[in-house]
Amino acid sequence: MTDRLDLAIIAGDGIGPEVIGEAVQVLEAALPDGVELVTTEYPFGAGHYLETGEVLDDSSLEALAKHDAILLGAVGGDPADERLKGGIIERGLLLKLRFAFDHFVNLRPSAIVPGVSSPLADPGEVDFIVVREGTEGPYVGNGGVVRAGTPAEIANELSVNTAFGVERVVRDAFTRAAARPRKHLTLVHKKNVLVNAGVLWQRVVDEVATEFPEVTTDYLHVDAATIFFVTDPARFDVIVTDNLFGDILTDLAAAIAGGIGLAASGNINPTGAYPSMFEPVHGSAPDIAGQAKADPTAAVLSVALLLEHVGHPEAAARVVAAVREDLAARGTTPRSTGEVGAAIRERL
Amino acid sequence: MTDRLDLAIIAGDGIGPEVIGEAVQVLEAALPDGVELVTTEYPFGAGHYLETGEVLDDSSLEALAKHDAILLGAVGGDPADERLKGGIIERGLLLKLRFAFDHFVNLRPSAIVPGVSSPLADPGEVDFIVVREGTEGPYVGNGGVVRAGTPAEIANELSVNTAFGVERVVRDAFTRAAARPRKHLTLVHKKNVLVNAGVLWQRVVDEVATEFPEVTTDYLHVDAATIFFVTDPARFDVIVTDNLFGDILTDLAAAIAGGIGLAASGNINPTGAYPSMFEPVHGSAPDIAGQAKADPTAAVLSVALLLEHVGHPEAAARVVAAVREDLAARGTTPRSTGEVGAAIRERL
Ligand SMILES: CC(C)[C@H](C(=O)O)[C@@H](O)C(=O)O
Ligand SMILES: CC(C)[C@H](C(=O)O)[C@@H](O)C(=O)O
Repeated sequence: MTDRLDLAIIAGDGIGPEVIGEAVQVLEAALPDGVELVTTEYPFGAGHYLETGEVLDDSSLEALAKHDAILLGAVGGDPADERLKGGIIERGLLLKLRFAFDHFVNLRPSAIVPGVSSPLADPGEVDFIVVREGTEGPYVGNGGVVRAGTPAEIANELSVNTAFGVERVVRDAFTRAAARPRKHLTLVHKKNVLVNAGVLWQRVVDEVATEFPEVTTDYLHVDAATIFFVTDPARFDVIVTDNLFGDILTDLAAAIAGGIGLAASGNINPTGAYPSMFEPVHGSAPDIAGQAKADPTAAVLSVALLLEHVGHPEAAARVVAAVREDLAARGTTPRSTGEVGAAIRERL
Repeated sequence: MTDRLDLAIIAGDGIGPEVIGEAVQVLEAALPDGVELVTTEYPFGAGHYLETGEVLDDSSLEALAKHDAILLGAVGGDPADERLKGGIIERGLLLKLRFAFDHFVNLRPSAIVPGVSSPLADPGEVDFIVVREGTEGPYVGNGGVVRAGTPAEIANELSVNTAFGVERVVRDAFTRAAARPRKHLTLVHKKNVLVNAGVLWQRVVDEVATEFPEVTTDYLHVDAATIFFVTDPARFDVIVTDNLFGDILTDLAAAIAGGIGLAASGNINPTGAYPSMFEPVHGSAPDIAGQAKADPTAAVLSVALLLEHVGHPEAAARVVAAVREDLAARGTTPRSTGEVGAAIRERL
């Protein structure tokens, strides 16, 4: 247990600062006595870029690297803004952080608990985690364009998958599965079509499985997996999958488990070589920004993942318990961002 | 209107022959008087491969090319069968046909009609089509492996997207959108991450949109699209998307609109240069094969798409109407494959 938590905060754009304000207050309230919280705010995001022309320079990356962890709200501006075209904030800021700090485990839990309403008529007992690979696959940015902007344009995207990269995330997923009551791991891929990557993923899962005889495994094609997400999501325990499939499946998972307002994530480097980064799955939602309407729950649950990661599992459990109590007591009366945050803190 | 329909039939594996048997009978019953149906059966599939070692040779491809259209049941064997590893049937047969016959429009409609039950509590009025690109993207099979099977393996998958290929499918999607009451087209991609392909897709949509001023358009990231599929699927009219995103979204669409037992598809070459191919979205389902349990409705609805394509829109409409009447009258008593087929034929 550290007696000091040195946290970098990137509140970001839109509703980012609103939800992070509440999340940091929850963090302060939940930290064990004697642990000092030191926070440093970084201004990055679409707004900062439009003002200064800076997305994320190398010296800031070095400064960020010195913190114990990073808490991020949401980054991204108006999708129609031409100046933000080509994923300049997504690739240049969010993915740059995930890649620079080698966040190979993108951890995204989903659970339906009392008070959480699902668009599914009969979801059953949903409680699973997705371990999404975070540093490879189609996200590497190794594509290119030939004859750009012409009728003869060719645009390529390369998905890169290494045994090194797949093995470390698969081992992490098995470790998490072994620690859960059901001890089941599902590999999701599209190995009947993406045969090069698929054969690698399946081979690695089969190999690592021998180290975890207590964990049962199965395999689903990504298309079939989406069917089970809506017909029988309770079947899942731990899902391990590639960066892009994980992106798609975790938004779907969030949607069936109470919406994107509740979905937390951790971009984790389990080696500790770099700070891990915790963020709600939702975006900056420019349409509702500044109205104190955003639900800070996803940011608060991201704080729980952060606490767990930095060695305060009991504090993490208290945050999760407070959120669950708040969810169970939630009526239908709309509450402001601050009211939700305060209600959660009162239950800590 | 042709007075002869020369159809190739690949009944395939598992439940394929069972559902195709019913579908062909519906086709015979629905064809306008005076149109002669000539069918030729081809034995391809996992079973044929395991018996003969042949997946699909060039002379069969040439023979298939001579037909007016192809009706396919389902191909694929036991996923655990080592001899079928590496997508040998999927890539070597199904995708080979789609690529050889340049099926650039993979058409997949979804609708919730009376009698169709959805896993969603409140799906609303769902009636949309997905126009999935069928000849490019991550399906091209241009990946490769370095140091295969070693701890230093690198497995690559290349997604190839051409202005030529994107433009023709986007124009087809706009044409379909313009013919529908709502006249709305949604591009689904992941242009904030897959920026090379994404910029191309968005540019082409913007360009072709100028030819269809009556069609409104919007854009969704694929992850966000899955959220709307479960929270507000009624918002969609026509979706145009890449080969892989289309694969994922259409299984999800099938799941929310009554299940994979009802989902039809057409692999269409709108130029007529090659025969188009119609198939249910479902697979060969070896677990229920031979038990007369499979629902032939998806195969029957694929016949409706076929009739539409070969110039018999009224016969197509009759088949759809018969299916909808049957769905509306369906109770909860299980019926055999043959009973469902007969019930649909009676309503023609
Ligand atoms: C904003 C985008 C780059 C990001 C991703 O694709 O990973 C987001 O969708 C997420 O899931 O965190
Ligand atoms: C079997 C497989 C190759 C195929 C695909 O990925 O296209 C299937 O999932 C489909 O959607 O028709």
